[in-house]
Amino acid sequence: MTSPDWIAADWGTSHLRLWLMDESDRVLHRIAADCGMGSLARDGFEPALLRHVGDRLAPGRVTPVICCGMAGSRQGWAEAPYARTPCPPPSLAQAAAAPTTDPRLEVRILPGIAQERPADVMRGEETQIKGWLAAHPGFDGVLCLPGTHCKWAHISAGEVVSFRTFMTGELFALLSRQSVLRHSLSDEGWDDDAFAQAVAQAMSNPGSVAADLFTIRAQSLLAGLDPAVARARLSGLLIGLELGGARPWWLGQDVAIIGAPKIAAAYQAALSGQGVPARLADSEDMTLRGLIAARRAQRENAA
Amino acid sequence: MTSPDWIAADWGTSHLRLWLMDESDRVLHRIAADCGMGSLARDGFEPALLRHVGDRLAPGRVTPVICCGMAGSRQGWAEAPYARTPCPPPSLAQAAAAPTTDPRLEVRILPGIAQERPADVMRGEETQIKGWLAAHPGFDGVLCLPGTHCKWAHISAGEVVSFRTFMTGELFALLSRQSVLRHSLSDEGWDDDAFAQAVAQAMSNPGSVAADLFTIRAQSLLAGLDPAVARARLSGLLIGLELGGARPWWLGQDVAIIGAPKIAAAYQAALSGQGVPARLADSEDMTLRGLIAARRAQRENAA
Repeated sequence: MTSPDWIAADWGTSHLRLWLMDESDRVLHRIAADCGMGSLARDGFEPALLRHVGDRLAPGRVTPVICCGMAGSRQGWAEAPYARTPCPPPSLAQAAAAPTTDPRLEVRILPGIAQERPADVMRGEETQIKGWLAAHPGFDGVLCLPGTHCKWAHISAGEVVSFRTFMTGELFALLSRQSVLRHSLSDEGWDDDAFAQAVAQAMSNPGSVAADLFTIRAQSLLAGLDPAVARARLSGLLIGLELGGARPWWLGQDVAIIGAPKIAAAYQAALSGQGVPARLADSEDMTLRGLIAARRAQRENAA
Repeated sequence: MTSPDWIAADWGTSHLRLWLMDESDRVLHRIAADCGMGSLARDGFEPALLRHVGDRLAPGRVTPVICCGMAGSRQGWAEAPYARTPCPPPSLAQAAAAPTTDPRLEVRILPGIAQERPADVMRGEETQIKGWLAAHPGFDGVLCLPGTHCKWAHISAGEVVSFRTFMTGELFALLSRQSVLRHSLSDEGWDDDAFAQAVAQAMSNPGSVAADLFTIRAQSLLAGLDPAVARARLSGLLIGLELGGARPWWLGQDVAIIGAPKIAAAYQAALSGQGVPARLADSEDMTLRGLIAARRAQRENAA
């Protein structure tokens, strides 16, 4: 097994993704684990990392680890203080050094970005944006980054000008798994028409969303609503509520969506229903490209 | 200890309230327990009831128990099929007999009310409405019944003409206890101004609520937002979203709010901010009055 030249890491609240990289920035090996920040104390990060890569590290030399995500939060491995909008996605010059005891490791964590008004924060998405900009250097438009907390970011001249976070994904998770609606929904399954209809309904009548949500339960009780339809409708109501509120972000803009394939496709369909064509990019791919871009910029500065 | 002439019971998803009544419908004794329907199998209801009242039942005669709430649902003690709007709050003639083995018990469960379009259901609130109508027989207006699932009911000529349920209370519980916002909120504490401002904000810009929710978290991280202010703002955003959607229910209507004192006062304050004066009534009090009204109507029919 080849030892990696360096390691790219996306360490979020609930997941850890590691890419062992060669000196030409090709992926030797990918590791996905569920030891997210949320399950670790500060002194648990290095052992967790070594558990996955310890036997791959070259002896007698230092392997750089470049990390993004919640590992850089106050409750994480080492706090990487936020960059402030407007700003380009942070570089390694702004990264925080994480304390390590193994001499083969040198870990740096890229900061997130904060915005003062309206108050907002991101950690991890800035690296996806960095990856997008590496592939589309002249991009001037809006990036939509759906997930637990969906971000809309206005990008211009290589900078994050401003952004706004919607709690849509977390609302979906809570409502589908822990509310009274859980009895009416399937874990899988989908219905495009029900989704599109719910998006339109929430966009035109956002105040009624909390009632339209309960209608899902009532239709399930009274009329045996199909659980897959129910799931698509729940998603559509929440994404429609968001799209109504995010209208200034996408109306007349060049929009690209960076997300996991399923949720990104749902946002694309919803925007398409509003006459907005949006490009798609995979969030994991963009994260890796962003980490590579950070590594390259550092190499170029050193050269 | 006097044996009760009859027993009034409010058996919800998470709570059980029992009132031991004398023959003049005065309360001899009140019992509150947390053995709600959600924690009981079908054959667990009678033992749970006997645990609380078994030693108070008069030997050698049958004590009627009049029950409302989720105990009458399909997953409850005995299904009491819904009455359908428009209809008066159901009477004992429509009640379901619950199976019992103790010869001293005769349990009947009042049905809830269902509505076909838009699909909606209530179980328990219909008895509060019955209590309200017993005290205000000519009432023509709208009842707002906040709680886990807030109901707005249009009442005319002694009937529930139509109603609509908003999941506001459940959203508040999920977001305050289980979302990322839980780190930013206090369990207690309040701020009237923050509440009023959040109500106005959500009413004027409902689509942004999912973003305004995340702003609470960001302000907490970046500016040390007071956790009591955060709590009031979360409540205000969700109630404001509801009030915007429920506008046709309260605009120009005679509105009364039936709820637990704190949440009822919050709705009253929010409506007052819209120039709508609303009377208040306590939900537990209305439930008891409703159960008494059901008992009296039966006595009068028997006489």
